[in-house]
Amino acid sequence: MGIRMNGVMQSELDDLFEFLRFPSISTASEHGKDVRACGEWLLGKLSSMGLDAELHETAGHPVVVARNAHHDDRKTVLIYGHYDVQPVDPLELWDTPPFEPVLKDGRIWARGATDNKGQMLAHVLGVEQTLKEEGELPVNLIFLFEGEEEIGSPNLVPFIEAHKEVLACDIIAVSDTGMVARGVPTMGYGLRGITCCEVTVKGPAGDLHSGVYGGAVANPATAVARLVASLHDADGKIAIEGFYDDVKPLEGWEREMWAQVPGVSDADLLAQTGAPEVFGEPGYSSAERLWARPTAEVNGIGGGYQGEGSKTVLPAEAMAKFSFRLVPNQDPIDISRKVQAHLEKHAPAGVRVSVEAGHDGKPYYTDPHSAYGKAAQVALEKAFGKQPVLIREGGSIPIIKDMQDILGADTLLLGLALPDCQIHAPNENFWVENFEAGIAMNRILLGELASVE
Amino acid sequence: MGIRMNGVMQSELDDLFEFLRFPSISTASEHGKDVRACGEWLLGKLSSMGLDAELHETAGHPVVVARNAHHDDRKTVLIYGHYDVQPVDPLELWDTPPFEPVLKDGRIWARGATDNKGQMLAHVLGVEQTLKEEGELPVNLIFLFEGEEEIGSPNLVPFIEAHKEVLACDIIAVSDTGMVARGVPTMGYGLRGITCCEVTVKGPAGDLHSGVYGGAVANPATAVARLVASLHDADGKIAIEGFYDDVKPLEGWEREMWAQVPGVSDADLLAQTGAPEVFGEPGYSSAERLWARPTAEVNGIGGGYQGEGSKTVLPAEAMAKFSFRLVPNQDPIDISRKVQAHLEKHAPAGVRVSVEAGHDGKPYYTDPHSAYGKAAQVALEKAFGKQPVLIREGGSIPIIKDMQDILGADTLLLGLALPDCQIHAPNENFWVENFEAGIAMNRILLGELASVE
Repeated sequence: MGIRMNGVMQSELDDLFEFLRFPSISTASEHGKDVRACGEWLLGKLSSMGLDAELHETAGHPVVVARNAHHDDRKTVLIYGHYDVQPVDPLELWDTPPFEPVLKDGRIWARGATDNKGQMLAHVLGVEQTLKEEGELPVNLIFLFEGEEEIGSPNLVPFIEAHKEVLACDIIAVSDTGMVARGVPTMGYGLRGITCCEVTVKGPAGDLHSGVYGGAVANPATAVARLVASLHDADGKIAIEGFYDDVKPLEGWEREMWAQVPGVSDADLLAQTGAPEVFGEPGYSSAERLWARPTAEVNGIGGGYQGEGSKTVLPAEAMAKFSFRLVPNQDPIDISRKVQAHLEKHAPAGVRVSVEAGHDGKPYYTDPHSAYGKAAQVALEKAFGKQPVLIREGGSIPIIKDMQDILGADTLLLGLALPDCQIHAPNENFWVENFEAGIAMNRILLGELASVE
Repeated sequence: MGIRMNGVMQSELDDLFEFLRFPSISTASEHGKDVRACGEWLLGKLSSMGLDAELHETAGHPVVVARNAHHDDRKTVLIYGHYDVQPVDPLELWDTPPFEPVLKDGRIWARGATDNKGQMLAHVLGVEQTLKEEGELPVNLIFLFEGEEEIGSPNLVPFIEAHKEVLACDIIAVSDTGMVARGVPTMGYGLRGITCCEVTVKGPAGDLHSGVYGGAVANPATAVARLVASLHDADGKIAIEGFYDDVKPLEGWEREMWAQVPGVSDADLLAQTGAPEVFGEPGYSSAERLWARPTAEVNGIGGGYQGEGSKTVLPAEAMAKFSFRLVPNQDPIDISRKVQAHLEKHAPAGVRVSVEAGHDGKPYYTDPHSAYGKAAQVALEKAFGKQPVLIREGGSIPIIKDMQDILGADTLLLGLALPDCQIHAPNENFWVENFEAGIAMNRILLGELASVE
């Protein structure tokens, strides 16, 4: 059976390392082949376990689906994950190359280690163990793995709609969210949605000498900054008209519970992020700001000379990339329109402003006290030896809401990421203990879900 | 004597092309050797003309000084120029490589063609012609050429102070400014000053996932944008307290003259820049905004993900490079303090703001109707066949004011740059007709200055 390391078998680590070596960056067109190769590797792994696995072409990166033999008298469980990853820049901040995974200090270091390859592979390997040891699973299983989550799953919704009979299920499990702290199992019952856009501000036809022309033509870098500044008031509240109209107010029990959840105090947040102080919408705790309030963030801003020393140009253009995290019951389309109207209204004089809409996804909310929710909490408790906490998540997995809408099934958010896992950032890592717990949790979960009345 | 092309000798073009091939970018440390090599080439050229030329070491790039044999009964004329150039990025916007000069459509295309290698070499070659034809110059001549103008001449002021006896002169001539339009000789009697700084805004220790942490910690890109936006009111007036306190008001004759000067109408400005509309401080014409009013410009802004597609990070830091163009009688040190105070006062919550001061230089103003001024106007009229216009300049040559302060000599600004010369930008170019006129103008100028009473 191989040598156990930290309770994980060497063969399981080998599988994860192989999986992590694919630079499956879905947003970068030059990595298209790598995303496909990663999907094909996954297909091979699932087939080798005896599952009926298929790679489905889409207009973008492939979807991989695998299933056991289904029987009418069993619950059907769909497990979703994604094998694509975020870009790796700034590359120079990585201690080790992002696609050469290493095991060090109890963690696996690589892009995608936590988000989402490590977490999804834990489910795959849990199923592999059960099949090897029991010869059979207690449920009808559907694995649904996509390669476009990091770009907003543009082709998965059409895929699910086209295959909704074969993907029909009673409940969905996803490990692509976080634990509030090490050793504290965490079940999520809500996610923020998202809508993105990129603003380009154009002024002169080319960069100008800031002495020769400065003062008589508008500066696009100044203009884009003024647009960014218009998004918030000085206190950090979003200043877009109607932005908060549909926000579901926090319930009393949530505020009380979250005040007790470990790992999300202001001190924890400062320790996790290294930020000099917490900052956000007045009237809310940090946990509430993260899990139940919307945001307007600049993911990137750029224009003019950014190199060493000075270059006194008046730049020809500047840009900003925005993402807005949304909460129930905000609608991404509605918010996107309000953002567009705001940017048009605040467009500075003397420049041309254009807005390109990006990906979006709806926020998600479900009742954590349902029968399936309780079964998942039992699985988490058994795998981690501790009662789970109930939270919402600040991140977005738009497909969760889409699956709720199309398949009519709720999703159990059984996250294994820790706050120091550096997802989307340099030095992403995954705790081996959570990889192990994830494999165990999958095995218990399928049994618990099988016995839900 | 060689073949004449457009009235310029092939040997003169060869000299300029050789001079332009040095990538003497003073701001980029990796080009230090190229700046030196360029200075050494210049030294060789000046020596070969029979001048007593020396290359002087400084703490930065070398200064090259050359002189003829001086006689007490002659006026002493100092001609200043610089052999360093601006950076070349964005390189992909150049039609031909910036350090491989080409002659095309009546212009020489290369970085430095106009600013300042072409203009300064016209003086050198004018002197060479006079020496060849007359055997002697009508004045005591001092050439003073530096390699650090584009980084604010940090070592030239100490150099001039240390050599003020040997650099003592009656009048200074500089061709490093512009003509208002093709064929319209232009004498400048004022320059804007400058003060620069770079603002760095730091938030979290590393880039964060904008979903996991967005809303509870401040975003440095948002913060830097808010700082940039704080510099102006919505109309384009600078909002820094006390910024305009010392601005010398425009005189009636200037406003009247400038309203008649060709090439500086709003339509001209739009044609030159490609900007969608003019924009600037209310109550002033474009010429007045450029030549007599100060600015606050962003030369570069950056933070977060600027690549293809989206990356939903909350960036760890963001920066902006500022330059402020100053007019008489603003003082760069005073303005730098006011800017610093403004940035501290407007520093957004939740981030750390640091300001690094950059180079600076005082604005310059002199009487265009002095005897030397009139002599220069005669030289311009004879070289171009047309009466010159009198303007101030939007750009900064801080050393002009420093030389006025240290050497007690005024400077004649006899610019040969045209608005479409693309200085500091891709596809910089120099009209061959202005190279030719510059050579002729130098010859006439020295004679006219020699006979000033």
